[in-house]
Amino acid sequence: MTPEQRLKELNITLPEVPEPKAIYKPCLIDGRHLYVSGHVPMRADFTRIRGKVGADMDVEEAKQMARLVGMLILSSIRKHVGSLDKVKRVIKVLGFVNGVPDFDKHPIVINGCSELFAEIWGPENGIGVRSAVGMGSLPDGIPVEVEALFELIEPAS
Amino acid sequence: MTPEQRLKELNITLPEVPEPKAIYKPCLIDGRHLYVSGHVPMRADFTRIRGKVGADMDVEEAKQMARLVGMLILSSIRKHVGSLDKVKRVIKVLGFVNGVPDFDKHPIVINGCSELFAEIWGPENGIGVRSAVGMGSLPDGIPVEVEALFELIEPAS
Amino acid sequence: MTPEQRLKELNITLPEVPEPKAIYKPCLIDGRHLYVSGHVPMRADFTRIRGKVGADMDVEEAKQMARLVGMLILSSIRKHVGSLDKVKRVIKVLGFVNGVPDFDKHPIVINGCSELFAEIWGPENGIGVRSAVGMGSLPDGIPVEVEALFELIEPAS
Repeated sequence: MTPEQRLKELNITLPEVPEPKAIYKPCLIDGRHLYVSGHVPMRADFTRIRGKVGADMDVEEAKQMARLVGMLILSSIRKHVGSLDKVKRVIKVLGFVNGVPDFDKHPIVINGCSELFAEIWGPENGIGVRSAVGMGSLPDGIPVEVEALFELIEPAS
Repeated sequence: MTPEQRLKELNITLPEVPEPKAIYKPCLIDGRHLYVSGHVPMRADFTRIRGKVGADMDVEEAKQMARLVGMLILSSIRKHVGSLDKVKRVIKVLGFVNGVPDFDKHPIVINGCSELFAEIWGPENGIGVRSAVGMGSLPDGIPVEVEALFELIEPAS
Repeated sequence: MTPEQRLKELNITLPEVPEPKAIYKPCLIDGRHLYVSGHVPMRADFTRIRGKVGADMDVEEAKQMARLVGMLILSSIRKHVGSLDKVKRVIKVLGFVNGVPDFDKHPIVINGCSELFAEIWGPENGIGVRSAVGMGSLPDGIPVEVEALFELIEPAS
């Protein structure tokens, strides 16, 4: 099965992504690499979902937020390259968690995104290197943000 | 216009950069990629500019600090490769903001650096992927730090 | 001297590394690049070493933790590619320090890892670009985490 077929089988409909308001590109292709900007949890109307993990939100809720961020990343990729089938594998994930100062379950939170990628690209190609770290604050008070690097099947011409 | 011509037209004189005191290289070339270390705001005598964003410094001041960091990055690049004209485009920016725990305007702060790069390399090549995140603390109590990845016109021989 | 010979001359025995519990690969090869996940300080029984730098632990102790993280990175690399001699140089280090809000000596802490890499690969190949930043929290309450990017002697076939 291809990534798009897996997405369909999992019955996942990807959310829309907004145009960037700040000065960045959501995705950028460099040869056979696809760089993805930090993505953030938002509602269908693009308003951001706020929450400090360990205070306003527990670990399981934050993990669901990370899964949502993963779906927004998939949506940005499809918008940029046309199909998830053009992506060969995950190379790197950097997950930022906005937790209280003694929060210590960052890997469980970021697994929400990593599990999604593993479902779409499989246990070998869907899992890359990763760091999951705790921030002092995040834009719009969001609980989690994820940036990533993927390898394309073919380099862009 | 080339990046160096744009810099001249904008009447920007780049600040000097110091030799590193810790164990890192300010810039490193790998094929056609130019990696740039985290750069920090400093005065002409290289003393660091301190401040927690949202407490000692407001968003606009912090944005100016991010622009200064961008100028120090440009200065490091020119020192390393001789001319900004050897750089084709921005691939990636990672902006670290030292904000109070409820700070939520990180993108506006990092825009100070991103706007500068867009002025120098233009709206297509000057804008890459980006994450703008909030730290618990930063070296020397600085308000902002930025690291970046650029593509060179030609790979180093 | 090769990296493995330097390690022997320095009388360093690398610690064992555990299998990952979360959804990531400790190392990933992409052409002639070796990506390394965020590594964390742990004891021989793989229990994590906790501590907020500036509260539970001083700068020198945290620097030793960063050196330990460096040794765990070397161990992961050797486990993944067979020998440190297959690694040509350090490209990039990103060091995360779990400090109190006014902590400001992040570069000294991360030097614990950077000095180790410089001892193994020498002052030119052992030093790459770097950012050393302060986090709000880290997984399991650890004081420091480091991720890195290396260049291999030869690309993987």
